[in-house]
Amino acid sequence: MTQFSKEVMHVGEMASGAALTVPVYRLKADKSNDQQKHPSVYIQANMHGAEVQGNAVIFQLLELLRNIKIKGDITLVPYANPVGCNHKNGEYTLGRFDPITGVNWNRMYHFDESIIAPFVQSSIGKDDQTIEANFKALMIESIEQKLDHNIFGLTTGQRIAYQLQRLAHQADLVLDLHTGPISSKHLYCPEYAKESAQYFDIPHTLFIPNDFDGALDEATFCPWWKLQEAFANLGIEFSISSQSLNKESFTVELGSQEQIDLDVALEDAKSILNYLQYKGVIATEEYQPKEMTRYGCYLQDYKAYYSPMGGMVDYLAEFGKPLKAGEPLARILRMDNYHFDDENESAAPLHYLSLDHEVLPILHFASASVNQGTELYKVFSKFFTL
Amino acid sequence: MTQFSKEVMHVGEMASGAALTVPVYRLKADKSNDQQKHPSVYIQANMHGAEVQGNAVIFQLLELLRNIKIKGDITLVPYANPVGCNHKNGEYTLGRFDPITGVNWNRMYHFDESIIAPFVQSSIGKDDQTIEANFKALMIESIEQKLDHNIFGLTTGQRIAYQLQRLAHQADLVLDLHTGPISSKHLYCPEYAKESAQYFDIPHTLFIPNDFDGALDEATFCPWWKLQEAFANLGIEFSISSQSLNKESFTVELGSQEQIDLDVALEDAKSILNYLQYKGVIATEEYQPKEMTRYGCYLQDYKAYYSPMGGMVDYLAEFGKPLKAGEPLARILRMDNYHFDDENESAAPLHYLSLDHEVLPILHFASASVNQGTELYKVFSKFFTL
Amino acid sequence: MTQFSKEVMHVGEMASGAALTVPVYRLKADKSNDQQKHPSVYIQANMHGAEVQGNAVIFQLLELLRNIKIKGDITLVPYANPVGCNHKNGEYTLGRFDPITGVNWNRMYHFDESIIAPFVQSSIGKDDQTIEANFKALMIESIEQKLDHNIFGLTTGQRIAYQLQRLAHQADLVLDLHTGPISSKHLYCPEYAKESAQYFDIPHTLFIPNDFDGALDEATFCPWWKLQEAFANLGIEFSISSQSLNKESFTVELGSQEQIDLDVALEDAKSILNYLQYKGVIATEEYQPKEMTRYGCYLQDYKAYYSPMGGMVDYLAEFGKPLKAGEPLARILRMDNYHFDDENESAAPLHYLSLDHEVLPILHFASASVNQGTELYKVFSKFFTL
Amino acid sequence: MTQFSKEVMHVGEMASGAALTVPVYRLKADKSNDQQKHPSVYIQANMHGAEVQGNAVIFQLLELLRNIKIKGDITLVPYANPVGCNHKNGEYTLGRFDPITGVNWNRMYHFDESIIAPFVQSSIGKDDQTIEANFKALMIESIEQKLDHNIFGLTTGQRIAYQLQRLAHQADLVLDLHTGPISSKHLYCPEYAKESAQYFDIPHTLFIPNDFDGALDEATFCPWWKLQEAFANLGIEFSISSQSLNKESFTVELGSQEQIDLDVALEDAKSILNYLQYKGVIATEEYQPKEMTRYGCYLQDYKAYYSPMGGMVDYLAEFGKPLKAGEPLARILRMDNYHFDDENESAAPLHYLSLDHEVLPILHFASASVNQGTELYKVFSKFFTL
Repeated sequence: MTQFSKEVMHVGEMASGAALTVPVYRLKADKSNDQQKHPSVYIQANMHGAEVQGNAVIFQLLELLRNIKIKGDITLVPYANPVGCNHKNGEYTLGRFDPITGVNWNRMYHFDESIIAPFVQSSIGKDDQTIEANFKALMIESIEQKLDHNIFGLTTGQRIAYQLQRLAHQADLVLDLHTGPISSKHLYCPEYAKESAQYFDIPHTLFIPNDFDGALDEATFCPWWKLQEAFANLGIEFSISSQSLNKESFTVELGSQEQIDLDVALEDAKSILNYLQYKGVIATEEYQPKEMTRYGCYLQDYKAYYSPMGGMVDYLAEFGKPLKAGEPLARILRMDNYHFDDENESAAPLHYLSLDHEVLPILHFASASVNQGTELYKVFSKFFTL
Repeated sequence: MTQFSKEVMHVGEMASGAALTVPVYRLKADKSNDQQKHPSVYIQANMHGAEVQGNAVIFQLLELLRNIKIKGDITLVPYANPVGCNHKNGEYTLGRFDPITGVNWNRMYHFDESIIAPFVQSSIGKDDQTIEANFKALMIESIEQKLDHNIFGLTTGQRIAYQLQRLAHQADLVLDLHTGPISSKHLYCPEYAKESAQYFDIPHTLFIPNDFDGALDEATFCPWWKLQEAFANLGIEFSISSQSLNKESFTVELGSQEQIDLDVALEDAKSILNYLQYKGVIATEEYQPKEMTRYGCYLQDYKAYYSPMGGMVDYLAEFGKPLKAGEPLARILRMDNYHFDDENESAAPLHYLSLDHEVLPILHFASASVNQGTELYKVFSKFFTL
Repeated sequence: MTQFSKEVMHVGEMASGAALTVPVYRLKADKSNDQQKHPSVYIQANMHGAEVQGNAVIFQLLELLRNIKIKGDITLVPYANPVGCNHKNGEYTLGRFDPITGVNWNRMYHFDESIIAPFVQSSIGKDDQTIEANFKALMIESIEQKLDHNIFGLTTGQRIAYQLQRLAHQADLVLDLHTGPISSKHLYCPEYAKESAQYFDIPHTLFIPNDFDGALDEATFCPWWKLQEAFANLGIEFSISSQSLNKESFTVELGSQEQIDLDVALEDAKSILNYLQYKGVIATEEYQPKEMTRYGCYLQDYKAYYSPMGGMVDYLAEFGKPLKAGEPLARILRMDNYHFDDENESAAPLHYLSLDHEVLPILHFASASVNQGTELYKVFSKFFTL
Repeated sequence: MTQFSKEVMHVGEMASGAALTVPVYRLKADKSNDQQKHPSVYIQANMHGAEVQGNAVIFQLLELLRNIKIKGDITLVPYANPVGCNHKNGEYTLGRFDPITGVNWNRMYHFDESIIAPFVQSSIGKDDQTIEANFKALMIESIEQKLDHNIFGLTTGQRIAYQLQRLAHQADLVLDLHTGPISSKHLYCPEYAKESAQYFDIPHTLFIPNDFDGALDEATFCPWWKLQEAFANLGIEFSISSQSLNKESFTVELGSQEQIDLDVALEDAKSILNYLQYKGVIATEEYQPKEMTRYGCYLQDYKAYYSPMGGMVDYLAEFGKPLKAGEPLARILRMDNYHFDDENESAAPLHYLSLDHEVLPILHFASASVNQGTELYKVFSKFFTL
């Protein structure tokens, strides 16, 4: 039977001395009669305070997994960021960035590329299993170094991020559950893991390159990808996509923020089990990906459209449906500008916004009130079907 | 033809010296061949920063009114609060209260009841028209006194509120357009104006007593109601509901905040025109209230339900449908509390919340994340059909 | 020897389930060989998040009290408000009001005056000691009623405030430690307790009437004062200032917010021990109030001066020194208005602000940037020496 | 006589349509009888909302400059950021980052290094004056390109920053006036401009390398420095420190935020005039730098010390005085941890923080309440005298 355990991880302290803690749930694989290696999994949710639906997905995953035989260890971390999760300003959760510094909570993970070259040198001639174990150990040690040996200390966010990352490095497959503001479901997927994108019931996939920009998915797959590249440069094959290594990380965008929907969460939990079944983590054949048109887009073609004016926005473009050139994304109301006589267009009370080429709208801003320059929509500006 | 004019009202200054301004639109009645008195109207929107849909309703009202003959003057004020309207914290608009002081923007209007008694004394024997004109003048003077003659000055919010109130006192009918957080449409209506509630296409009406609590509707109808009462105590009839006086004020809650929907706004504009047509403000027969079950509730029975625990909320109860005793309002997820073994109820990951009597849910909190004690729902705890 | 104990009081839960707790320290009087009644004391600090210096004063009180024989029980509660204490927006602590609702944390205590009349009726003929015990019990029961028996629940702030108030009602003397924004030391003192004001080393005292406005000091002395008045109306003497009853409550404003200074805190701890020695709570003769001019002012003459314009403020008036009519309180810089030519006064870059009568400046706003209508200074507009 | 003019620059729009504007003051040099080239100057203030003292310095500069013959044009821009300047949360100004996105307002300037190489190629053989004029034109064109030709638009902050930068590129000497939180005066100076640091009455100078990190000083000197380096790599001398080119940029940290002090501002204005006199911008000999110990530090040795624990801080270390190894920077109060018995050190109520080597404290956090990981102090961890 699946062994279940819970730990409370201490990740910081508030001014009053109140401890910042994160619950860590672990499901231990049943290894009896199983000599094969199966990937281990790390799933976290709610690094951004308002993006709560991942907690509901973890709930539903636990509800489903308690009745499934699991073959690889699974670690699940809801409420990953106890500062962001509880920080209200007015009715909403101001949890995208540290309220003191403004730094995005999902840009504080660590990867120092300079560890790759010496590691590769010292690994030549070793077998994949040894290299994997050593590299995992190196990454964990590198994080522990950051956590423990800095006389000037760490920021609040680093202390949280590094502790989560230490857990994540122990797994082969990493899923970081997020949401957009008001958003369709979409997936950030490393370019090399394209195959896996089809096992999620998510119609939009962003393929991201091997550049580390501070996020958890990058912090966990970039090192392996860089390692593979460094070996390849020496003519050595070390395939992180192989059955035996199998290193993948995804940011799963579950829809809109500030919402809990346990019924939708059940669907998303099943979608994740599709993927875990495909990867051999769970011993079942029950889950099948849904039929749907899956659109892909390279990260460089994922564009933010910033409002060309201040105003109140009636968002018109639907998510996930290609929007023709010239079709309106939104119309902007400007009630400081109403007139009875005919007006010139720039001083009108209503403005339609559109783009000069076809795009696929993915998400839009959370509020109708925008300043000039507020990020209005994010769109796939070039896209293809998987 | 309708005369249209626009004025920009200066209501304050920011630290940089930037002027805080409010646009004021006026439609002047066509009085040619019309000896009758018709009520004048004041409509404002967006006193709370996130409650933007009223601006769209004013837009649609103007679009409709430009083609209708109007008989009473109409003043329309969108963006009534330039501080609240533009104040962001994260993606949302923190516009419910002054960000410096916490004072609710809609609790700063003025009414000093002590003006009633001497006014009544000095009015005995005068005709209704004279009393009306004198009392209107007194209220305006009273506000101007507050605006101009205070050596210690006024708060930022008072300066805004009093200037709006000065405009509102010049009208007979006052509509203050608000929204709830996530909300059904509902109407705050003075108890004496019950009849009028049926002309709005709004299924839920709150009947409010003659107590001044700082809001604009109260600040404009309470003085007239108190005046009527004071005369009645002397055995003098002075009916503010009469055809010739006709003093009414409503707070119109248009649905949810942080949203602009111009199509829904058109429906709400027509609903307001129903009411204005009924009151003889516009010369048309075009508008008819929709058939619908209209529920009423007295203000004392309008209850906020505060969350008995912290957690992440899956809101279940639908608005506007009576919810039986024991049926769940919401379920609360607590992912710090997941266990595989059987648990006691208080430490479970999922909690269902319900009440011990039937209620009519009207609105709920804007975010899924709540602290213990956050206002979760507002409900009609006793209600009736109109 | 003094018995010391610590308890952690649970006052709420955040969205993540994190407990909101408050430390409660208790010093138990040494009653051996002491038949006399000595007043018990309740001291709390930091109800407003940024007003932290009271915690340092409680620290210094504990450091001093561990070496003093105490005769009355003393309860000390630092970090009284775990939400406000930890709520940052930018570098500062946004702890004056609930960040969700805007309600001032120090306006949520409870007093229902309707309990007085029936209590007085049922108490006629009883002795003071019995009346005191019964009334204390009634107040505590009244708070527990609010805490436990409300199907619609309590707000976050009420749950905190009522639990603190339950502790405070058990004591005879109550001190609520606050600070101003940038401020001199001042004391809120009930009018009947004027005598006691001179035992604090605080040069400015506000005398407050018997009106309950939601603060802790009022919530604890108003009921006793109302009780005394109600008995007096029946011709019965029940003196809360008597040696045996001795009910007093103060709000102690320790200076400026956002600052901890342990050296100044030691001075303020000694000032509080002056008062406790005078009241017979501690068995020492060591403490003597400092010689200083002590100014008094009635609450109705304590005036906020709101900025007549937006701008950047150079605060000029010193605290605690009478400021002559016409002398500048502050000068306001308006760098949107600089000119080389001679200008009219209203469009100048520098404006001097003054009042038309002598005042005693007590505190000013925390920031140089003010909107028109921001509370710039608070002053004793009429004052006298004690 | 000096020609003075004022322009109001439109840099954005809020949701209500309110224009975001910035005042731009220009002093035109008197070029009569002056064939020499004198550097032109750009000075801005208040890019971070709470850092207001620079506005007062600009005021005092204008007051002084109206009586001085000026030889180079001077542009002065107070209130550079109308969003940050007016954004309050509670009493303080939350103006360090865009309140919607968290992005630091002083990290949004632009420099695309790829323009250097082709420019150098096309400039070989041209004289310094021509190269200077062409490169200035290129930088301005590059910014205008960003402002005007982006179908996906610009962020709110970019639109502000780029317009300021367009003005700054037109000048030779650029001063960006900032403040720390609670801070000593210090100066950010490019390494090559070391000589100039001594003309400011500022005791602490940070020498910064040629790396662009988004700030205005970097955005204006890095391009010139990179250009000089690129020429140098080709063996061509193009000295930006020469009398005729003279490109320098500084960030001047004037002390603490949230404060206006016009008297101190006058001192700082004179300090800036020292520098401008040295550079030949003004025709006077009146100003002399003060005698003082001037400490220097390389940017890589400027260290933030993050709090190792949550708590309430009594800041002890004085600014500008070397602090010996082991001497306390601060002591942290933890009133959740008070005990009467002897305690282990980690659970004590008072903790002293120190470093293992001598440092020069420059600034500290603005509030006494800190989380674990809050930036407590910034220090020169290695330093030297100039």
